[in-house]
Amino acid sequence: MSENRSIAPLKIIASGIALPENKIYSSMLDEKLNKTKGFVEKHSGIEYRFHANNHDSQAKLAADAIHQALASKQLAAQSIDMLINASAIPVQALPCSAAHILAESNLSEGIACFDVNASCISFITALQVAAGLLATSQYQRIAIVSADLASRGIDWNDKESSLIFGDGAACVIVEKGDGKSGIVSYTHTTHSKGLDFCEIRAGGTRRNPRSGMTDDDFLFHMQGKKLFRLASSLIEDFMKRVFDESGLQLNQIGTVVPHQASHLSLEHMRQRVGVSTEQLIDIYRYHGNQVAASIPTALHEAIISGRFYEKPNVMLIGTAAGLALCAMVLIP
Amino acid sequence: MSENRSIAPLKIIASGIALPENKIYSSMLDEKLNKTKGFVEKHSGIEYRFHANNHDSQAKLAADAIHQALASKQLAAQSIDMLINASAIPVQALPCSAAHILAESNLSEGIACFDVNASCISFITALQVAAGLLATSQYQRIAIVSADLASRGIDWNDKESSLIFGDGAACVIVEKGDGKSGIVSYTHTTHSKGLDFCEIRAGGTRRNPRSGMTDDDFLFHMQGKKLFRLASSLIEDFMKRVFDESGLQLNQIGTVVPHQASHLSLEHMRQRVGVSTEQLIDIYRYHGNQVAASIPTALHEAIISGRFYEKPNVMLIGTAAGLALCAMVLIP
Repeated sequence: MSENRSIAPLKIIASGIALPENKIYSSMLDEKLNKTKGFVEKHSGIEYRFHANNHDSQAKLAADAIHQALASKQLAAQSIDMLINASAIPVQALPCSAAHILAESNLSEGIACFDVNASCISFITALQVAAGLLATSQYQRIAIVSADLASRGIDWNDKESSLIFGDGAACVIVEKGDGKSGIVSYTHTTHSKGLDFCEIRAGGTRRNPRSGMTDDDFLFHMQGKKLFRLASSLIEDFMKRVFDESGLQLNQIGTVVPHQASHLSLEHMRQRVGVSTEQLIDIYRYHGNQVAASIPTALHEAIISGRFYEKPNVMLIGTAAGLALCAMVLIP
Repeated sequence: MSENRSIAPLKIIASGIALPENKIYSSMLDEKLNKTKGFVEKHSGIEYRFHANNHDSQAKLAADAIHQALASKQLAAQSIDMLINASAIPVQALPCSAAHILAESNLSEGIACFDVNASCISFITALQVAAGLLATSQYQRIAIVSADLASRGIDWNDKESSLIFGDGAACVIVEKGDGKSGIVSYTHTTHSKGLDFCEIRAGGTRRNPRSGMTDDDFLFHMQGKKLFRLASSLIEDFMKRVFDESGLQLNQIGTVVPHQASHLSLEHMRQRVGVSTEQLIDIYRYHGNQVAASIPTALHEAIISGRFYEKPNVMLIGTAAGLALCAMVLIP
């Protein structure tokens, strides 16, 4: 336990998720991709995931998750005084996605809003940012929402990455709390040698009509083997640092909420990091990789299944394009 | 003065800027746009601004500003333990721009980095976020950088907006300090009714090859009159709130560092808000509107011209796509 350490006060008071309507069974992808029956489920470890239609709004899905979180604890939308969007992919280049989400939501016109982006681990970073703002500013109740429509960037010609992505949104509402709940440690590293192992090249100043672009630049590209090799070379030192900084051992962590990156990544949490099945939140089979929405969606699952507030310590952890590794230990 | 108020400790210990090579005189735009000599300077209030070439890198420009800030106070790149990118437009959709900037910089491999995006006022929000992180996490010395290549999205058919934009980057390095310097107040509001008054529609999930897009979606579009009308209707109440929250009057603010949105916006700071020429940092004539890089570039100008540390209180203030209004009062 971390009796001797100071924590950054933070209390998660509500959570909610939203999913688009289309439930895409792996059997449907078998047909779409001309595979034998069972191929996609076997290779992806996913039974179904949800995909938005091509004209559905990311901001609307985010707003739905915010409304779900509010409704779960009968909180008034007007009680939220700040909105942080923690999605990986933006709605558009300008203005920030948080402004789009605010416009789609029932939250009060005129509140503060902005984006925090650390690719797939944005939600963890946003929690740390929120704790800092609750400690040093006038804000009392912050909504943090992650919403990603991965389906809009799937490269259907890529055998590996086309099978794994699902869309979704998740929101948590946080306050400073009574000081007993909060962040024990936050460990975040970015290794630029993996910068181009996971990317969507269009969307900003690098590839556009003026600098040159192709339709392929709008699709998600992954160099799976290089990514896996780099992450594998870093994970041991990283986990040692997480345990050092939190002052805790793995067996003192009641629940581990990982990014649902892939079937293999979750298997590695079990095999290489040694997280037990009881500790691990694994929603991959029914959601796939929801990009930045994965961690808060899995956290919501932990909350509603009695594996969050009931535990002395909870760890959020994930890898992200960048290549980034990030972990947070919380006292719920 | 704010003797009775608690401040969020924050000390700006260094600053630096970077500009692309091409100095674009308004007379050159007269020719490009088939205008009579003197037209562009007269209508824009700009003598020259800087534009990157179409293949210059936003991340490289940001890294240059970081290196300038470090060099200005002979700080070691390895002393920075976190990087926050506070630009408005991203490098690409994934990963976050901070990872791209880290890769171009001399900063240590493996530090924490992420983006904060509140459109043109991102830098002010990032300062508040940094103060929170310095108070509640292990980070000691944070680099905040804003870099925007507005030229890549200029609509040369738009008479108004094509004249005003310049490219650039600026960085400040912050620490917690001794508690005497810091943030007195942070006021941030977003009014979604102005969501589409300033925008670049492509770049994310809203307009892409799958959801439909045109080359025009990559250009900056502004509904100038509507924007002006909405901002005008909000500014009086907003300024009242800023003075209430800071506990200060305008005459107690030594220097005002505004977003360099337009010739007109700076004129309004003088005429409607009542900021004196001595108080106002106005670099518009030689930079134009550098999007999110404007406020830190103007702040750097205040620092090097003896109008920052020499003053009891400094205000950063701006409007942004969203429509957002944001102001911070600092004790330097």
